[in-house]
Amino acid sequence: MKDLIDLIHNANSIAIVTHTSADGDALGSSFGLAFALDALDKKVSVFLEEPVPKMLSFLPGQHFISEYRGERYDLCMCLDTSDMKRLGKCADIYSSANKKITIDHHTTNNMQADGLWIDERASATGEMIYKLVKALNVDITREIAINLYTAIITDTGGFRYSNTTPESHIITADLLSKDIPFADIVKKVFDTVSYSKMFLLKKTLQNLALYFDGKVAVSYLLYEDIKTADAQTDDFEGLVNVGRNLEGVEVSLFLREEQSGVFKGSLRANEYVDVAQIASIFSGGGHKRAAGFSVEGGLDESVGKILAEIEKVL
Amino acid sequence: MKDLIDLIHNANSIAIVTHTSADGDALGSSFGLAFALDALDKKVSVFLEEPVPKMLSFLPGQHFISEYRGERYDLCMCLDTSDMKRLGKCADIYSSANKKITIDHHTTNNMQADGLWIDERASATGEMIYKLVKALNVDITREIAINLYTAIITDTGGFRYSNTTPESHIITADLLSKDIPFADIVKKVFDTVSYSKMFLLKKTLQNLALYFDGKVAVSYLLYEDIKTADAQTDDFEGLVNVGRNLEGVEVSLFLREEQSGVFKGSLRANEYVDVAQIASIFSGGGHKRAAGFSVEGGLDESVGKILAEIEKVL
Repeated sequence: MKDLIDLIHNANSIAIVTHTSADGDALGSSFGLAFALDALDKKVSVFLEEPVPKMLSFLPGQHFISEYRGERYDLCMCLDTSDMKRLGKCADIYSSANKKITIDHHTTNNMQADGLWIDERASATGEMIYKLVKALNVDITREIAINLYTAIITDTGGFRYSNTTPESHIITADLLSKDIPFADIVKKVFDTVSYSKMFLLKKTLQNLALYFDGKVAVSYLLYEDIKTADAQTDDFEGLVNVGRNLEGVEVSLFLREEQSGVFKGSLRANEYVDVAQIASIFSGGGHKRAAGFSVEGGLDESVGKILAEIEKVL
Repeated sequence: MKDLIDLIHNANSIAIVTHTSADGDALGSSFGLAFALDALDKKVSVFLEEPVPKMLSFLPGQHFISEYRGERYDLCMCLDTSDMKRLGKCADIYSSANKKITIDHHTTNNMQADGLWIDERASATGEMIYKLVKALNVDITREIAINLYTAIITDTGGFRYSNTTPESHIITADLLSKDIPFADIVKKVFDTVSYSKMFLLKKTLQNLALYFDGKVAVSYLLYEDIKTADAQTDDFEGLVNVGRNLEGVEVSLFLREEQSGVFKGSLRANEYVDVAQIASIFSGGGHKRAAGFSVEGGLDESVGKILAEIEKVL
């Protein structure tokens, strides 16, 4: 930490960069840090590949966002990013900076830096920024707290994922003491559903069928429906859990037709079935309770083949 | 707190009672406290009106549950209960006990007790039990931690409701340090969906319609569908949010036909509409952003009347 503090104190102009498709942890960490550096009278700019998603437009600090015009910065701080490729066009800002800092909580990180701080036990990069701001002796203001709270709930699924630690809660206790509208933030981050997502959820429920005494749930989305919904990748997120969460279900299979006759399959298990092993039969892979694969052919035929494999291990 | 500690130390046999339809806070507080009293070598019994719901069957401490056979206890501790009526048949155990303690976090509490501890700032009774166990100098074991964690997430909606405090997070940090399977607990408490609920959700999505440039979402469930689903009261919970969470929606109206031609209406607003005022036109009431009422007549006619009122304040 000492080397990071020195690098920051020795810099005048500081650029903050993060990964493309920046999420709540990437953006909350960036804006939170920007406020802290601004309090230290640094010239701070945040660079993003894309506009801030509408869902996160409530985050304070967006006045720190700049257009890159080829300037060379005293220091570039790269947050929540494990690889130069994930920086997109912002890679140039990092490469050209006089000094470089990388702060990240991903298990594998290939970044080169003068100051490298990787803590894979941190549930979110936002937790590390919290510690850095404290170490810089900067007050955690309400603006910083809103950003870091958003960062932490994004990467812990609202303290629900197993990466959540006692420290996540201790830090959050301090952030809540800054009188932030946390219930509104949660609602904005987790509860807003797009038209596309709503349509896909409806279809997923309509197509849901149960097999083997309700122990296996199967649902699917056809290419036609996906096109109608004008769906983005994150609209599919969680649809496999519709079946998984149903009482009595052990295995949930969800198929989406990516192109005519080609299905991307997701498998989830609740208690005992090893779905990675089933996925591997179809040249896929994953974890014991969450795996994926691809399969070609008609819907009924594909479902039949996969069900036959699931039946063997139920 | 000192009077409570004395009452506990002076008792040999201790009964724990809580409200009917006991939820995660009621049960987690009861079993958590039972383990602590057991560690102090008290003869502990927990009395419940109903069996433990399947969803909460993972809670340790169910061996403390007893059948009441008219015994008189040295001390009865009543948890999370604001009124004798809510104790159901267990009211007798409380009334007949030699000494009485009530511990609760509800704003209004009418219980009579030798030791009364009401803390309306506590997000859950489980938080108060945590402090009591600490004050009794009993170790927070893994079993106690599982129970109190369940209590806290139940009453804070997983740290999402505005009643969550910095202290909720500080206590939770300590509970997580006891190596509890919190991600599994969250899944059991929040993610398990009954067949009835799934069916009602499907119907709610199918019936969803938008009005006034997508600013108002309306959905409904007909008596016939509710009967088919064999639905319980909590199966309806949250269905009004299906419309509320849709992007661009300000007001969500959800109607369920309780008996032929009689609809129970729920209204939710996101940002600015005062739905309590709309509900009051139909002799209902509630809060600014969450209200309810009843209306008689046909579905289309009822929706039309309510939409006309919403339109005036959009």
